Amino acid sequence: MAKDMSVQTNSNKIPEPALRRLPWYLSYVKLLKTQGEKFVSSTQIAKKIDVSASQIAKDLSFVNISGKTRVGYDIDELIDVLDTFLGFTEVHKAVVFGVGSLGAALLSDSGLEQYGLKIIAGFDVNKAVVDSKIHDIPVYHSKNFIELNKEMKADIGVLTVPSGVAQEVSDFMIEGGIKGVWNFTPFRIRVPEGIVLQNTSLYAHLAVMFNRLDQ
Amino acid sequence: MAKDMSVQTNSNKIPEPALRRLPWYLSYVKLLKTQGEKFVSSTQIAKKIDVSASQIAKDLSFVNISGKTRVGYDIDELIDVLDTFLGFTEVHKAVVFGVGSLGAALLSDSGLEQYGLKIIAGFDVNKAVVDSKIHDIPVYHSKNFIELNKEMKADIGVLTVPSGVAQEVSDFMIEGGIKGVWNFTPFRIRVPEGIVLQNTSLYAHLAVMFNRLDQ
Repeated sequence: MAKDMSVQTNSNKIPEPALRRLPWYLSYVKLLKTQGEKFVSSTQIAKKIDVSASQIAKDLSFVNISGKTRVGYDIDELIDVLDTFLGFTEVHKAVVFGVGSLGAALLSDSGLEQYGLKIIAGFDVNKAVVDSKIHDIPVYHSKNFIELNKEMKADIGVLTVPSGVAQEVSDFMIEGGIKGVWNFTPFRIRVPEGIVLQNTSLYAHLAVMFNRLDQ
Repeated sequence: MAKDMSVQTNSNKIPEPALRRLPWYLSYVKLLKTQGEKFVSSTQIAKKIDVSASQIAKDLSFVNISGKTRVGYDIDELIDVLDTFLGFTEVHKAVVFGVGSLGAALLSDSGLEQYGLKIIAGFDVNKAVVDSKIHDIPVYHSKNFIELNKEMKADIGVLTVPSGVAQEVSDFMIEGGIKGVWNFTPFRIRVPEGIVLQNTSLYAHLAVMFNRLDQ
């Protein structure tokens, strides 16, 4: 199994664009499974997704699976391996900072849990939401985060505060032990080395949509 | 004003990466305004955001504004011009297909309206939500969309259905007059030429976050 071992070691070095494509393959292969398919080739995936077959094969080489000549990948195995590789089968504890409109919406989105993100608490400074519960998730005052997180041990912080305080709240979360910041604000925050940052800019996507629609 | 006119004409051709950066500048400049600043230079913006000053000046050249030597851009004017250019000051009518966990969360996120997206209806096939209201927004049966949209005239469709039906629901929305599809599913849908597609893959962002955290 020496060959498989080396493939597994590779997994740490998977480039971000490849990592971002893997959920597309997973999603498509899950669809094939519901249609009763047993095997899938990279050529078959390529036909449905705007990625070349060789790119797909290369992306999948980072994952610990090998296809069989002519039949391709075993679908059940591919789903298992991708779900695990992408971290969707583990539980990652997260807190949400900023329980306004978007933050509250994310607390209510139980779908994230199916992908491995378990939101265990919200934090805010607004009296109207502090000490309330949203979708059974408690909302605390932000000032108590550092103390509370010694027990809770969340390592992902979802940032949905107003842009004007995005940087300071991010710094504060990190001080309390957050290792990964998921930034939903349009503000371009900075994080120290070793901290993982993902930006999901809904507003940038809207801007592109509006601009292209008006043409 | 011949020069300004030509700048305005350029605006239609702004590349997507530039368009995606503009909300970062807007967000930062709004912060400066709350701090009482009146002018800002591209060098000043560059110091706060990981984009070079020359790239910022180039990006802003697509927008109808010109900076003054030494002082830079007038902040009030820059905010106005960017808000307008990005389409955040107009009302764009949207419908949400798939009122599950994420769809319902988006119906509840009134923050999107501040950025120009007005969700006017939800559509689903699930009896549990059809004919209900979420955050005062009516949810209809999907089969009625084409008829209803002759009146509603929504041109943006937010896609939050299960991956397995993402393609067919997208096709159906477009049949009913949708010109822009905002895809939140991990499925890689395809749209005909002339239809605008934006993918917001929360799960891809999670996958990157989990993978990098585990290293």
